[in-house]
Amino acid sequence: MPDAPLRMAAVGLDHRHIYGQAGHMIAAGAELVCYWTEGQPETLPGFKKRFPDVPFQPLDDIFARADIDLILIAAIPADRAALAIQAMEAGKDVMVDKPGCTDMDQLHAIKDCVARTGRIWSVNFSERFEVPSVTKASALVAEGAIGRVAQTVGLGPHRLNRGTRPDWFFDRKQYGGILADIASHQIDQFLHFTGSTDAEITLARAGNYANPDDPGLQDFGQIVLQHGDCHGFIRVDWYTPDALPTWGDGRLTILGTEGTIELRKYVDIAGRPGTDHLFLVNGTKCEHMACRDVGLPYFPALIADIRDRTETAMAQSHAFKVMELALLAQRLAED
Amino acid sequence: MPDAPLRMAAVGLDHRHIYGQAGHMIAAGAELVCYWTEGQPETLPGFKKRFPDVPFQPLDDIFARADIDLILIAAIPADRAALAIQAMEAGKDVMVDKPGCTDMDQLHAIKDCVARTGRIWSVNFSERFEVPSVTKASALVAEGAIGRVAQTVGLGPHRLNRGTRPDWFFDRKQYGGILADIASHQIDQFLHFTGSTDAEITLARAGNYANPDDPGLQDFGQIVLQHGDCHGFIRVDWYTPDALPTWGDGRLTILGTEGTIELRKYVDIAGRPGTDHLFLVNGTKCEHMACRDVGLPYFPALIADIRDRTETAMAQSHAFKVMELALLAQRLAED
Repeated sequence: MPDAPLRMAAVGLDHRHIYGQAGHMIAAGAELVCYWTEGQPETLPGFKKRFPDVPFQPLDDIFARADIDLILIAAIPADRAALAIQAMEAGKDVMVDKPGCTDMDQLHAIKDCVARTGRIWSVNFSERFEVPSVTKASALVAEGAIGRVAQTVGLGPHRLNRGTRPDWFFDRKQYGGILADIASHQIDQFLHFTGSTDAEITLARAGNYANPDDPGLQDFGQIVLQHGDCHGFIRVDWYTPDALPTWGDGRLTILGTEGTIELRKYVDIAGRPGTDHLFLVNGTKCEHMACRDVGLPYFPALIADIRDRTETAMAQSHAFKVMELALLAQRLAED
Repeated sequence: MPDAPLRMAAVGLDHRHIYGQAGHMIAAGAELVCYWTEGQPETLPGFKKRFPDVPFQPLDDIFARADIDLILIAAIPADRAALAIQAMEAGKDVMVDKPGCTDMDQLHAIKDCVARTGRIWSVNFSERFEVPSVTKASALVAEGAIGRVAQTVGLGPHRLNRGTRPDWFFDRKQYGGILADIASHQIDQFLHFTGSTDAEITLARAGNYANPDDPGLQDFGQIVLQHGDCHGFIRVDWYTPDALPTWGDGRLTILGTEGTIELRKYVDIAGRPGTDHLFLVNGTKCEHMACRDVGLPYFPALIADIRDRTETAMAQSHAFKVMELALLAQRLAED
């Protein structure tokens, strides 16, 4: 008899990332059995459209259900830590949208809770876990296709989409700052591709250069980080122009001592159609690889981890370290 | 009667950049009348092949000739300042390959000499002046196609070509360090595209990660610089892999508050043929522009400047500032 499917509840739908969290887990075999959210977030109609048979349930009832294994959280960033802790105290594992939390006190409380409960606190770094070309790049780097990784350069432009954004999006306290929020993706990728378990934030900047009427918004951010001989540069912004056919021209350039990988994750501007373009150049190859169908191992691995109490999808210490560095960078940028 | 052509001598052929310096000036109407170099550099046969009718002449004789207006210098970097000063003292203007000098004492001596003699000390920042797509990008930025420039990201990988490199290439003292040498290009581009006359070097790194048998070589470098709300990131390296069909995949990404320009200067990897690919994305456009034939205004402008005693090709203060920042970054990286 096969294992019963993993059963999930979605708690806090405030960011549309919940669609990907739930959708990819369902595709990997999990079952979404109910949801809760505060009020009527802009994302609710889209959620109901995608998951029409999933009923609302009060929060306490969800946490009290013995048949639910995993809580998916995409609440307002500042509220995510408390929900995650409540879920873990109730014996559930957690997958939270990034940023997993918005200040160091929250992070410490989460760490304490994980230590106390033995639960999994996973952060869905969607710019890696939901991007098949990153899966391919990981395999190439692991097999030595570009030698030792000396540097990652991650550029993460995002479309502001002002009309669709709720008030919390423009409130520094609630979204956590641009580095804690979107640059946590690129910190994750730096640690992942350089094989680092730690890093020093050597420079951090955050500013608002294009949206003077939104003083709570940071629309530009930079981080430089380093671990031994591994270097990382990160830029994030909310400047994606209207004519780009997608939300952002996210790039990752991985410089190895024997080759380079460039990912044009979401668009090859004025070029090839579709997403997930990988460019490999090394001693013998100079080629484009279409990676759309390479697969997303994080989601099935998380299902296995929940069943087996392992850490194959992402080391727990990695999730903690990414958020610690992101929060540290945010603090440095604002000092 | 048209003006007589500008007359030039090439002095110090140690770097093959002399081919471009001379070739572009000849294309703009100048005449190369003689050359001098120390010994038999690896570049000499290529020079004779390109300029077969140009005779050798002793250095002192060249400086004594009243009919020579401009001295082109591509000597060993550490020797360039002394040659430039000697040329200017003899009443000649100078165009030097980058780096224009290799330490602060040299730079101060050059500044003093320019002030004293009124001569032009121009540095041929070839990754701007010899690249038509940069000409196009300059025009687009000037006409406001991407709003205010918030950041430049310049990636400058280079092929090591070990077999063709002379001993001085591996001697830190003689080539000046990777940031003073090749990163001066990207500093030039940062100041140019942000319209800055100064900058703060906020981070600088140089290392040798792939060539342990060449302890004098720095094969990796990074600079972060900032001027007000304008940010710049620079990475340079000597890691271009063999399968790349050219010497380096030089990129410049210019982030504006209302759009982005990406230059794939020398190659569009596994993509379009040829050089000088510009990608513009803004509120209404998302397009590729082929810029091969846009033109290189620096060279004719320098001819006019020499005739008219103007600074249209490049402000003298800009050339000084670029080298000052490059030398400062180099010093910071080695502290």
